[in-house]
Amino acid sequence: MSPTTTGTGAGASSGDALNAEALDLDAQHVFHSWSAQDGRTPLVVAGGSGSRVWDHDGRTLLDFSSQLVNTNVGHQHPVVVAAIREQAGVLTTVAPATANLVRGRAAESILSHAPEGFAKVFFTNAGADANENAIRMARQVTGRDKVVSLYRSYHGNTGAAIVSTGDWRRVPNEYARGHVHAFGPYLYRSEFWAVDQEQECERALHHLERVIQAEGPASVAAVLMETIPGTAGVLVPPAGYLTGVREICDRYGVVMILDEVMAGFGRTGHWFALDAYGVVPDLITFAKGVNSGYVPAGGVIISEAISSYFDERVFPGGLTYSGHPLAMASIVAALGVMESEGIVANAARIGRDVLGPGLRALADRHTVIGEVRGMGVFWAVELVADRATREPLPAAAMGAVKAGSMARGVLPFVQDNRLHVVPPCIVTDEEIAEGLAAIDATLTDIEQA
Amino acid sequence: MSPTTTGTGAGASSGDALNAEALDLDAQHVFHSWSAQDGRTPLVVAGGSGSRVWDHDGRTLLDFSSQLVNTNVGHQHPVVVAAIREQAGVLTTVAPATANLVRGRAAESILSHAPEGFAKVFFTNAGADANENAIRMARQVTGRDKVVSLYRSYHGNTGAAIVSTGDWRRVPNEYARGHVHAFGPYLYRSEFWAVDQEQECERALHHLERVIQAEGPASVAAVLMETIPGTAGVLVPPAGYLTGVREICDRYGVVMILDEVMAGFGRTGHWFALDAYGVVPDLITFAKGVNSGYVPAGGVIISEAISSYFDERVFPGGLTYSGHPLAMASIVAALGVMESEGIVANAARIGRDVLGPGLRALADRHTVIGEVRGMGVFWAVELVADRATREPLPAAAMGAVKAGSMARGVLPFVQDNRLHVVPPCIVTDEEIAEGLAAIDATLTDIEQA
Repeated sequence: MSPTTTGTGAGASSGDALNAEALDLDAQHVFHSWSAQDGRTPLVVAGGSGSRVWDHDGRTLLDFSSQLVNTNVGHQHPVVVAAIREQAGVLTTVAPATANLVRGRAAESILSHAPEGFAKVFFTNAGADANENAIRMARQVTGRDKVVSLYRSYHGNTGAAIVSTGDWRRVPNEYARGHVHAFGPYLYRSEFWAVDQEQECERALHHLERVIQAEGPASVAAVLMETIPGTAGVLVPPAGYLTGVREICDRYGVVMILDEVMAGFGRTGHWFALDAYGVVPDLITFAKGVNSGYVPAGGVIISEAISSYFDERVFPGGLTYSGHPLAMASIVAALGVMESEGIVANAARIGRDVLGPGLRALADRHTVIGEVRGMGVFWAVELVADRATREPLPAAAMGAVKAGSMARGVLPFVQDNRLHVVPPCIVTDEEIAEGLAAIDATLTDIEQA
Repeated sequence: MSPTTTGTGAGASSGDALNAEALDLDAQHVFHSWSAQDGRTPLVVAGGSGSRVWDHDGRTLLDFSSQLVNTNVGHQHPVVVAAIREQAGVLTTVAPATANLVRGRAAESILSHAPEGFAKVFFTNAGADANENAIRMARQVTGRDKVVSLYRSYHGNTGAAIVSTGDWRRVPNEYARGHVHAFGPYLYRSEFWAVDQEQECERALHHLERVIQAEGPASVAAVLMETIPGTAGVLVPPAGYLTGVREICDRYGVVMILDEVMAGFGRTGHWFALDAYGVVPDLITFAKGVNSGYVPAGGVIISEAISSYFDERVFPGGLTYSGHPLAMASIVAALGVMESEGIVANAARIGRDVLGPGLRALADRHTVIGEVRGMGVFWAVELVADRATREPLPAAAMGAVKAGSMARGVLPFVQDNRLHVVPPCIVTDEEIAEGLAAIDATLTDIEQA
């Protein structure tokens, strides 16, 4: 599929007319996430392939956002599309209580990439309900209430997931009880007056343990963390932090849940981000990269110990589309091509040899860059008004970063004062060079303004 | 697609071997909803068409469950499958902030079936997060906290949805605040000592208003109800109940949310169940029937008043797969065939002329039937040990009802002491006759045992 063949069967409609229709219907009838409904100027996306998306008129952008950091195998991978089409012709939907072959194969494939000691997968529709159900399991097995998560985090938009979330989106939604937040490691804006990563790590662990002690360890069911907090800024934890969290959880009988919704399935150049740290949690939540979001799906990967707890006890959670065959077929295919095409290895290589060095070279040339951090195809560029004070670049300038990138043909992921550089895992060296050139020119403009 | 062509590409594998593989992988690796994980004996479902499903060996069942009451257009409707396949080749996934033509068309199509005064659709992944976001909207626009829902209800498995739920599944999950429950009308097991529907209606309304008054109306954001509580027993409300609820909501400035996840999109022989009652709520939640569950999708249909509240105020909710193109294409196609093939009218006719009379005839012959109620293809048969006391048929006998139906080739939906008769909306007169004959014979066995 190329940008010149994006008609939607509307016959004589020109691309511009279809773009106008998309914008008109959107403004009239579609209610949008996390925003005021007026004053939006949405991008029309009609199609895509690999690292690129386009509108109905063929105007193409290099997708350095992977949409919402989900299209790990790129847009419209032909093998995954073919698997969806095949399964669509056999059985799209089935009740979750049935046994379904493609669901079993999807679970088996996911487990083959998880650390030792994981037994089963509970499938959900996305990341939010994955976290909801992981929290539910932790509360059931411990008989405790509280969930400790981080202020710099995002875990989803439903009841418990949004109150586990640390960022501003939690505040209007605090209708769930039993949630406590702590600060995590983030040396560039340390909450612990630390001067280096070792000190940041040690103090963040001390702080976490003190919060658990002060809450009363016997009341704490779970620690829930993104392995690498994503939307909060690709906050790569220092060596030893996650294994330290594991030790704290073990000390107090707390279930450790790692949220790999954004970081998992290749994004970091590992199958799971936790592989980079040699840490084994009790529950792993996932969505996005597991099938690149081609069909809504998520889930919880469950340790043997927690899984067997429910062998003879009723698990009090469930949903109509748990293990939905169409979603399952897309998972089997997506993980299959990630294996056969070396997509995870590509993400690792790009991060190590191309994107990481390229972003560091930009930081050498642009004083507006305060810090670059990441791995694989999961990077954040912290933009600052002043390198010494680390004052964030103001919102207006960040708007100019977004507009400048798009004018140069690159779809960026802009969050607060950061540019997240999160292309698909299949991105090529040439595409990285093209994207970095656009960012380079945009930052030059910003600095001159 | 017929039951003889259900191979999954496994070459020499026989149907029995594939069934065994499906069961083995399921037992090993798949964690299931609302159940203990051991001791399950799941049905293998490999494929389906229309009102039937089958396993890998071609053993076929007439689906009187619509799986979880979702396959309203039947299994594998060719037009909907074709639409999924076509969209899969164009664009499966896109970020929710974009404008996307098929998403706009899906919203437009849904709104064309809603009552006057509805402006926009917020798309979610399923019914649970539809209810989560409707509750969120109600709390935002009212500045109040509490949600009043019914003890006999199910609203989904996430934070606020599960605590809105009335049934046993709420109890281990009460981690959300601001939820209050009331009793709804259910004359057969009246909570109000009522002797007829008029009295039941009047007293249920009095009770609801007293709960709101006692909670403090200024603290009540929303009343959330299934238009016809489904899993709780297809509790068809008496004439005047829902318009009475509307009046109470208006009196106290409370947002009225009708959950049409199970009852909506043809199930009752109306586009929405609320059409049968001439009631207009402020928010309508949906999932299941909107696309027969072929791709996970749900959403909230939003009145103009509530929609415009967020024109210049940020809506604090959202999700990655909101308005997912593959789901949207399946909605456009499913609603299209429901229109062009008269599927809603068929459900109405079946209920009025075939299934309703058929079930009432069974009740005349079987003393184990305490009550039959429903409309369209949405019926409950209440099975009792004693017609006079209305004592529910015990669990062991209900197990025999399920086993007996399946042995006779009919997949039933058994819930508590009830047989829910909920075939697809496309069910034929002949299929109804076939299914009723199986139920008839099964009930004869039960009565003789």
